[in-house]
Amino acid sequence: MPVHPNIHPEGLRLAIVGATGAVGREIVKCLERRSFPVRDLKLLATARSAGTMIPFRGQQVLVQELTHDALRALDVVLFAASNRVSLEFAPTAVREGAIVIDNSSAYRMKPDVPLVIPEINRAAIATHTGIIANPNCSAIISITPLWPLHRAFRIRRLLVSTYQAASGAGAAAMTELLESTRAHLDGAPYAPRVLPHPYAFNLFSHNSAVDPDTGYNGEELKVIQETRKIFGEPELRVSATCVRVPVLRAHCVSVNVEFEQPVDLGEARRILANAPGVRIVDDWKTNIFPMPKDASDQFDILVGRIRHDLSDPTGRSLSLFSSGDQLLKGAALNAIQIAENLLEAGARVGV
Amino acid sequence: MPVHPNIHPEGLRLAIVGATGAVGREIVKCLERRSFPVRDLKLLATARSAGTMIPFRGQQVLVQELTHDALRALDVVLFAASNRVSLEFAPTAVREGAIVIDNSSAYRMKPDVPLVIPEINRAAIATHTGIIANPNCSAIISITPLWPLHRAFRIRRLLVSTYQAASGAGAAAMTELLESTRAHLDGAPYAPRVLPHPYAFNLFSHNSAVDPDTGYNGEELKVIQETRKIFGEPELRVSATCVRVPVLRAHCVSVNVEFEQPVDLGEARRILANAPGVRIVDDWKTNIFPMPKDASDQFDILVGRIRHDLSDPTGRSLSLFSSGDQLLKGAALNAIQIAENLLEAGARVGV
Repeated sequence: MPVHPNIHPEGLRLAIVGATGAVGREIVKCLERRSFPVRDLKLLATARSAGTMIPFRGQQVLVQELTHDALRALDVVLFAASNRVSLEFAPTAVREGAIVIDNSSAYRMKPDVPLVIPEINRAAIATHTGIIANPNCSAIISITPLWPLHRAFRIRRLLVSTYQAASGAGAAAMTELLESTRAHLDGAPYAPRVLPHPYAFNLFSHNSAVDPDTGYNGEELKVIQETRKIFGEPELRVSATCVRVPVLRAHCVSVNVEFEQPVDLGEARRILANAPGVRIVDDWKTNIFPMPKDASDQFDILVGRIRHDLSDPTGRSLSLFSSGDQLLKGAALNAIQIAENLLEAGARVGV
Repeated sequence: MPVHPNIHPEGLRLAIVGATGAVGREIVKCLERRSFPVRDLKLLATARSAGTMIPFRGQQVLVQELTHDALRALDVVLFAASNRVSLEFAPTAVREGAIVIDNSSAYRMKPDVPLVIPEINRAAIATHTGIIANPNCSAIISITPLWPLHRAFRIRRLLVSTYQAASGAGAAAMTELLESTRAHLDGAPYAPRVLPHPYAFNLFSHNSAVDPDTGYNGEELKVIQETRKIFGEPELRVSATCVRVPVLRAHCVSVNVEFEQPVDLGEARRILANAPGVRIVDDWKTNIFPMPKDASDQFDILVGRIRHDLSDPTGRSLSLFSSGDQLLKGAALNAIQIAENLLEAGARVGV
């Protein structure tokens, strides 16, 4: 990407917190794939993971232990760890002069923290006061394709049912899916350690705590609240049912969306065909639609099954089915895009 | 089960067409599990599968080739094969004096064929003229729990997203899921033979043909049309998105249902708790909800995630998530229940 005059000509001093996790490793790869201008890359993790070597641009980078001191003299710090880690260390990074892009949910709903999907609300990036939040993966994959439709037809109500991959629960959950599946095939016992239920050839309601007032789980409430914040529509009517399926790293979503006005299907398709970050995969003849297999390792969110909802005779409702890589657009890629937009906007970073 | 005076005291002469398939084998087990009054059991299959031995009540029953002659002197014939087989052979069975209970979709929408989920419309059984149709598995699992809610609150609109198991595509698809998953874990190549897409750690839109007018696939149109017929509500507003997930034999459904009037959640729960064929699994505290693992090999449909839909401020909409064994309540069990209801109604069968 082009480096703005306000940016140090050799690029940024960047740190990744949680560098050995599923998202952290994907961020490192994404920096490479997108030729992000990095002058110095610092990889940070817990003491347990410190000492790991991770390849970056042909070199092995040593992972160091995350401490407050390690967060000095940085331009951008990408957090890809727990809420607890972000709450403890992100303020230090900001105080030391860095801009934080946080993958956790710790800061997402704070009024002074922009929550950004660049395809939707890149302008919000400029309002940051040190921390910019990366949204929930299911929210990103559900609503990135919907934004241009919302602008054209205005969403009245949005219903989402998810088919979420193991990666959303981290690298250990991906390993658990593989190992428990092998044990199942071998007829061997396997006690789940990471996720609360057997995962081999099984699926289950998302493993976040259920709110006793509403019966919605934490993941579902994130989809609802974050959609409203990102769209800038605090009253938008949204519901979600979030389900974990035995898939490795791409989420799918079945979306039913009702608009304020009748929708012309051809126009909706043209809008989606031109939507950034979106690729239509919708072959009615050969029955080829978005699948995790095809979305994995892709930057774009695949969208298909685009049709009028037969249960709405007014023609205001569409059904569609999308698949997006949870680790990329659902996490690492979106974070890098936020960083890219920071630079393109000419923020004085790292000069 | 009790034998009605109109039934031969030693039970019925029963045949199963497609006895070596996934549903056929489950019908044989179900007859045992429910102590169905069988005097004589004839197992029929294609020439390729003839010669197989299948255990029934401690004996081995030889599978014979399906021919028109084999369909004589029977009281009830359960078809669990393709539409083609049902279209060719069911009329013969009826002509020869049997009542046909058909698992295929060949006769479901014919006006003179009752389409029956006994918990919903058992009375329709009496209207048969030789053939009674067993509904689509996704329809059964979606709407059996909804019927008593419909009677209490009247459904205005029903949206379903499915998470369908391999078994719906037959025993060979279940084998393909297992074998392709093992190949994936071993890093070995695997070319799909039964289903159109790689199945290991993947999911895909249901593999039925997509209607070029509506964009709905055949499975989805079945859910829509069969729900209307079974409920006796030809105008009911229904939509479905049907998806195949890497699970062996229990379907799940994410249901969003809007009623004519506001719904009291406690009352909805009481209704579901008393609904026949349904078991509530809805522990908000421990995060235990319906899962294929728990629904497999069970007669009941598990229902949970019962909550008001937050996107409907009028309190008229509920969201819920159900799981039911595709081979049992989705196929074999429902067919046997239809046969049981035939007997209980005192039909003159086999006297």
